[in-house]
Amino acid sequence: MGKGEQTRQAIVAQALDLASSGGLESLSIGELAKAVGMSKSGLFAHFKSKEQLQLDVLEAAVARFIDKVVTPALREPRGEPRVRAMFERWLVWERDEFPGGCVIEGAAEELLDRPGPVRDYVVRAQHDWMDAIATAVRIAMSEGHFRPDLDPEQLAFELLTLFLGYHRHGRLFDREQAEARTRRAFEALVERARSAGSGRARTTP
Amino acid sequence: MGKGEQTRQAIVAQALDLASSGGLESLSIGELAKAVGMSKSGLFAHFKSKEQLQLDVLEAAVARFIDKVVTPALREPRGEPRVRAMFERWLVWERDEFPGGCVIEGAAEELLDRPGPVRDYVVRAQHDWMDAIATAVRIAMSEGHFRPDLDPEQLAFELLTLFLGYHRHGRLFDREQAEARTRRAFEALVERARSAGSGRARTTP
Repeated sequence: MGKGEQTRQAIVAQALDLASSGGLESLSIGELAKAVGMSKSGLFAHFKSKEQLQLDVLEAAVARFIDKVVTPALREPRGEPRVRAMFERWLVWERDEFPGGCVIEGAAEELLDRPGPVRDYVVRAQHDWMDAIATAVRIAMSEGHFRPDLDPEQLAFELLTLFLGYHRHGRLFDREQAEARTRRAFEALVERARSAGSGRARTTP
Repeated sequence: MGKGEQTRQAIVAQALDLASSGGLESLSIGELAKAVGMSKSGLFAHFKSKEQLQLDVLEAAVARFIDKVVTPALREPRGEPRVRAMFERWLVWERDEFPGGCVIEGAAEELLDRPGPVRDYVVRAQHDWMDAIATAVRIAMSEGHFRPDLDPEQLAFELLTLFLGYHRHGRLFDREQAEARTRRAFEALVERARSAGSGRARTTP
């Protein structure tokens, strides 16, 4: 990795923290230059436009998400344990990764009404994650952990709603209460998803 | 109502639409002046500061929410019908009331990390609404529609998560799919909330 690329990554890491707290839209090259102690023109050498900066920040966030949430969860045993790991790691990510919560989550909310390549990128990222969850649910169905008539996309949607509630309640009201309520709701969802009448699902090693 | 108050209300209505699409933070007195065809100094006569404008916009949104969601729902029969009416009207409100979705919802997300009187106002408003839902759930328990060991605050939290998922999925992906999934999740929640073994709850006239 060359020095230019190292500098660029350090800038993006700083930009991620700023975007997490202040939002992606309000992240400016001027503000970022001040935060990393560079000149505005120095930053422009790395990012040609605000839009490019936003895309780079989101790409870095997604790469980190894959590294910390998706990949380790996919190492868990197929079935319910993997679905569980995906959700659990998603919560930890929201709580611990950035000062103001998940950057992708914040960007999704900010960009709802702002068509363009940045919004398109967020839509794709969220779609990919929903697909990954639905796939893990489908595997849990084929493993016999979840009942066969479950709708995997419906469950993925419901897990998204829980994540959003956790984010909102945790940051606006009370973190511990949000965790407790989100986990209770998650357990109830898993309970409903399990094979009818099987009580607790068997787990594969 | 005097002419000054009429003008003020017309300005706030315009501000609500702007805040719904662009966010409360990016709502400026300059932009609003352009939208209503007034001078900036004319607008300053009505709102002394951007913060005052934001508070007035939120107060107007909450007043409308009470008028269109809370009050009509409270006219429904006590118990499950009232809980159902609250949730249903909340969804319709999110979908139809403003061009970019619920202003209070958008403000809550925007203001997560921005302490101050505007955030305090949003926190209070969201608390009040959660309390109103929990109270309606408690009544449904005492009417025998919902099981007696239910946690009303937990159910209120889960309804909030569904609303957030509806807002997100509907505005980022697909409105109709979001409605269908949100309603399915709601019915499953209500089913779980009903008195154990009672099947469908009786409804009071």
